[in-house]
Amino acid sequence: MLAKHSQISIRTRGKGTYEITDQVESAVLASSIETGTATIFIRHTSASLVIYENADPSAREDLHRWMERLVREDDPNYIHTAEGPDDTTSHLRMALTRTSEVIPIFNGRLALGTWQGIFVFEHRRAAHDRVVDVIAMGVTPSGVQ
Amino acid sequence: MLAKHSQISIRTRGKGTYEITDQVESAVLASSIETGTATIFIRHTSASLVIYENADPSAREDLHRWMERLVREDDPNYIHTAEGPDDTTSHLRMALTRTSEVIPIFNGRLALGTWQGIFVFEHRRAAHDRVVDVIAMGVTPSGVQ
Amino acid sequence: MLAKHSQISIRTRGKGTYEITDQVESAVLASSIETGTATIFIRHTSASLVIYENADPSAREDLHRWMERLVREDDPNYIHTAEGPDDTTSHLRMALTRTSEVIPIFNGRLALGTWQGIFVFEHRRAAHDRVVDVIAMGVTPSGVQ
Repeated sequence: MLAKHSQISIRTRGKGTYEITDQVESAVLASSIETGTATIFIRHTSASLVIYENADPSAREDLHRWMERLVREDDPNYIHTAEGPDDTTSHLRMALTRTSEVIPIFNGRLALGTWQGIFVFEHRRAAHDRVVDVIAMGVTPSGVQ
Repeated sequence: MLAKHSQISIRTRGKGTYEITDQVESAVLASSIETGTATIFIRHTSASLVIYENADPSAREDLHRWMERLVREDDPNYIHTAEGPDDTTSHLRMALTRTSEVIPIFNGRLALGTWQGIFVFEHRRAAHDRVVDVIAMGVTPSGVQ
Repeated sequence: MLAKHSQISIRTRGKGTYEITDQVESAVLASSIETGTATIFIRHTSASLVIYENADPSAREDLHRWMERLVREDDPNYIHTAEGPDDTTSHLRMALTRTSEVIPIFNGRLALGTWQGIFVFEHRRAAHDRVVDVIAMGVTPSGVQ
C-alpha cells in the first residue's frame, strides 16, 4: 500500500475554469497505484474545484455566467467586502462547488468518465497562483511498496 | 490493507433521485474492510450524487422541485443547449451537488446516519444508464489481505 | 498503513457555522500518519460541512445570510414542512454544501491552506447534538503499524 503526495501549481488569469485533468492523471501514473483513490484538494477559499463537461467550452461558459447571476456582485447585502465586490462572492461560489474531490483509480488509471474534466474554478478577478494537492493512495500491482 | 473496486449500474427513468444505499452497503460488506472509507464516484456530468433524507419521500420531492426553480430550464441566457433545455441545466445541477462522496467504514459497516440515504440524482429528462464506481479501502480485522 | 476512526461531538446553538478545525487536527496528530488523507463525514441531513474563510467572521456572516436568501423559509412551494419552516430548507442547504470532505495529510499534518477552517454548518433553529466522524488513513513514517 502506498500514499504519495504531489502538488499542482497553476497561475489563473481571472475568473473562469482552468483544466488540470492531465496533471492529475500524471500524478496517478507516477504513483504506480493499481487500485485506490486520487484525492484532490484546493488550499484556497476564493477558488474551488469542479468536475465538469470538458468537450464543449460553451458548457463551462454557461457555468461561469450562471454563477454570476446566482451569486451577484452587486448584491447590496454583503458585509465582507474589504477586498472588493469579488471578495465575499468568491467564498460563496467556492462553498457551492468543491474543495475536495476523490476520484477512483483502477487498472492503474484515473477512472474519469468520457466527458469529465477536472477544473480549478477561479472566483477572483485578478490573476492568482493556486495550489492543488494530490494524494494518490492504494495498492500496487505487486503489493510491494 | 485492501482496496477493492466495484461498480453499481442503474437505469434511471428521467429526472429524480434513485437510491443506491443498499448496493453501496453490499460492496462494503463484500470487501471485508473493518476500518476505512467507501469512495463513491459517478462517471457522468449530467447526473450527480447526493446524500439526503431517505425516510419521507416528500423531502426529496422538495429537492427536485426547488432545483427546477433554482436552475430554470426556461432561462434565456444559456448557450449550451444543443441537446435541449435539460442540457446545460443538467451540468449546473450536477455542479451544485456531488460527483464524489466519501463515507466512513468502521466496525465493518458503512457508517451512515439514521436518516441518510445515498442517491443518484438524474438531471436529464430521458432514461439513462448510469455507472457509479465504489472504492472500498482500509484495514481488515486480521490485518491480512 | 493505518486507518484510524475517531469522532467529534459538538452541541450547536441554532443556525450558523461552528469551527472544528482543532479537533480534526488533533485526530490527525493522534493517528501518527505521515502521508494520507483525513476523511470527515457528518452523519446528519439537516447539518453539513463546509471549509470556509476562518479569519474574518464577517465572511461567514455573509454565508449565513446569503443562504437564508437563496433557500427561503417563506417559500410557499415546500411540502416537507412537518417539523417547521426550517425542515425542508435544512436539507436543501445541506445538499448545497458538503456531507463529506477529504483533506490531505503530509509531513504528519493536516494540509489546510492559510485561511481555511473546517466548519459544521447547522441549518436548524434549535440546538442539536451533531456527530462528525473522522477517518485518518495513510502511511506512518516507519511504515510500521
